[in-house]
Amino acid sequence: MGQILVVGSLAYDSVKTPSGEVNSAIGGSANYFGLSASLFAPVRVVGVVGNDYAEEHSLMLTKRGVDVSGVQKVEGKTFHWAGEYSGDMNEAKTLKTELNVFANFQPTIPENYKDSDYVFLANIDPVLQMEVLKQVRKPKLVAADTMNFWIQSKKNDLINLLKHIDILVINEGEAKLLTGAQNAIMACELIQEMGPKAVVIKRGEYGFILYAENDYFALPAFPIKNVVDPTGAGDSFAGGFIGYLAHHELGLATQALKQACVYGSLVASFTVQDFSVGELQNLDSHKLEKRYLDYKKVVSISH
Amino acid sequence: MGQILVVGSLAYDSVKTPSGEVNSAIGGSANYFGLSASLFAPVRVVGVVGNDYAEEHSLMLTKRGVDVSGVQKVEGKTFHWAGEYSGDMNEAKTLKTELNVFANFQPTIPENYKDSDYVFLANIDPVLQMEVLKQVRKPKLVAADTMNFWIQSKKNDLINLLKHIDILVINEGEAKLLTGAQNAIMACELIQEMGPKAVVIKRGEYGFILYAENDYFALPAFPIKNVVDPTGAGDSFAGGFIGYLAHHELGLATQALKQACVYGSLVASFTVQDFSVGELQNLDSHKLEKRYLDYKKVVSISH
Repeated sequence: MGQILVVGSLAYDSVKTPSGEVNSAIGGSANYFGLSASLFAPVRVVGVVGNDYAEEHSLMLTKRGVDVSGVQKVEGKTFHWAGEYSGDMNEAKTLKTELNVFANFQPTIPENYKDSDYVFLANIDPVLQMEVLKQVRKPKLVAADTMNFWIQSKKNDLINLLKHIDILVINEGEAKLLTGAQNAIMACELIQEMGPKAVVIKRGEYGFILYAENDYFALPAFPIKNVVDPTGAGDSFAGGFIGYLAHHELGLATQALKQACVYGSLVASFTVQDFSVGELQNLDSHKLEKRYLDYKKVVSISH
Repeated sequence: MGQILVVGSLAYDSVKTPSGEVNSAIGGSANYFGLSASLFAPVRVVGVVGNDYAEEHSLMLTKRGVDVSGVQKVEGKTFHWAGEYSGDMNEAKTLKTELNVFANFQPTIPENYKDSDYVFLANIDPVLQMEVLKQVRKPKLVAADTMNFWIQSKKNDLINLLKHIDILVINEGEAKLLTGAQNAIMACELIQEMGPKAVVIKRGEYGFILYAENDYFALPAFPIKNVVDPTGAGDSFAGGFIGYLAHHELGLATQALKQACVYGSLVASFTVQDFSVGELQNLDSHKLEKRYLDYKKVVSISH
């Protein structure tokens, strides 16, 4: 089983959706990813929090066996994001982004993390993502996410990063923005030409597309009648995806990538059922396997 | 094998997409449906055209064995629709709707059509859809489509129709509009409560959802890199869907509905590859079976 390293945000989120709202609930890409990936394999986290970061939120990860010794605690306030979902719930309207201690985040990989096998560069400045990569010794597999902000403001740095990663895991809208493609299918091919051997496009309730070895694999998300809060779904997907790959250690074999996408999508289907990590922190492999069986019925053509 | 009856429009469409444009190309729900369904089973068409309707366009259907004797030819111009697709190609901007002879369309079902087994009520006034139903003797299965215009202007008539049909085949956006549901999963259940035993939600490139016997079945569309023109995709889906059901005569068995959705989706994947019926009129069961095999690779979790 491979060791996973994730570098990303630990945050407090205030979120409003048609189902209700939460104030300063635990969030951040590294938290969603860590809770998800740790269902499959050991995870190490690098990030930064302020002195307002509650002990219980570190414990949330350590209880899952996640190593949080790489999380820097510095003077100041933790990253705070506020957003609202309405209508189709597929996109958040950002109401407030207070970077706080995250503004000066310089990821330093602890010595004992440098042998990590699976690296996930969550959505941060592509310059920092590259800095992280330089510090890791000889990873077996590197995946990254990004967002429209970096595509627009640091495109060259992002394009440079793409030459050094194995898999880009990206939202559909951002994949189109990055490539100028009219649709996700075309975007996959254009992204692959930029460097990554495989491309995973996240489509919210519409599931995902995997493009690897000139083949497409696509499935919808597990049907959820009441989506409470989509926040963290993308990072949960990435966590389940990388977690599965680290657990099975089959490299970039297409069949492994397919299964990894399915598990990523299923983990995310739990995340959206509650605010913050409400559902995700109670997820275990038993519940996940049950949903896998239900999911197979939803997407299987044959009996 | 069951006899299919479709009541819908025969039209000329002027369409502009990022791939180019066509002027007064053949279109209309009954044409797309007829070309698609006739790949599986015999089809009878009821509709209306003006005296400008070209003989070649009737021949297009009769060459597929479609019975067009129920198409009325009246004084005046054929229905003309003009629209434009840009951006994500999932929705057309209507530039012009000239109903012409379609404005006074009163569907009369010829005596020799009244024993039809499978009835598809394409998107027309729900009052007329109900009129059609009254004229058909004892159909085995009735499916219908509708659109936002009727949902907004004739909701009560539409709701009355829903009590008398077996399957509603509807776009995702329109399913939400009809039910007020936040997402397609919830919309399926609310529509079923209105009467139909099964609900099929069309999601464009994201495929479809089938809701039947309290179970969901969902898959994405076949990946098409270059979508030339989405016009007619929904009616092609319906044609493949009803065609499959009429061919196999398995009633509303969920397994048959699943396969029917897959074939509907695959027929539509050809339609979008060219303007008008360019690709659809050259489609045959050999090409369709080949795509079915390719599609199974795209959506199969297992090897």
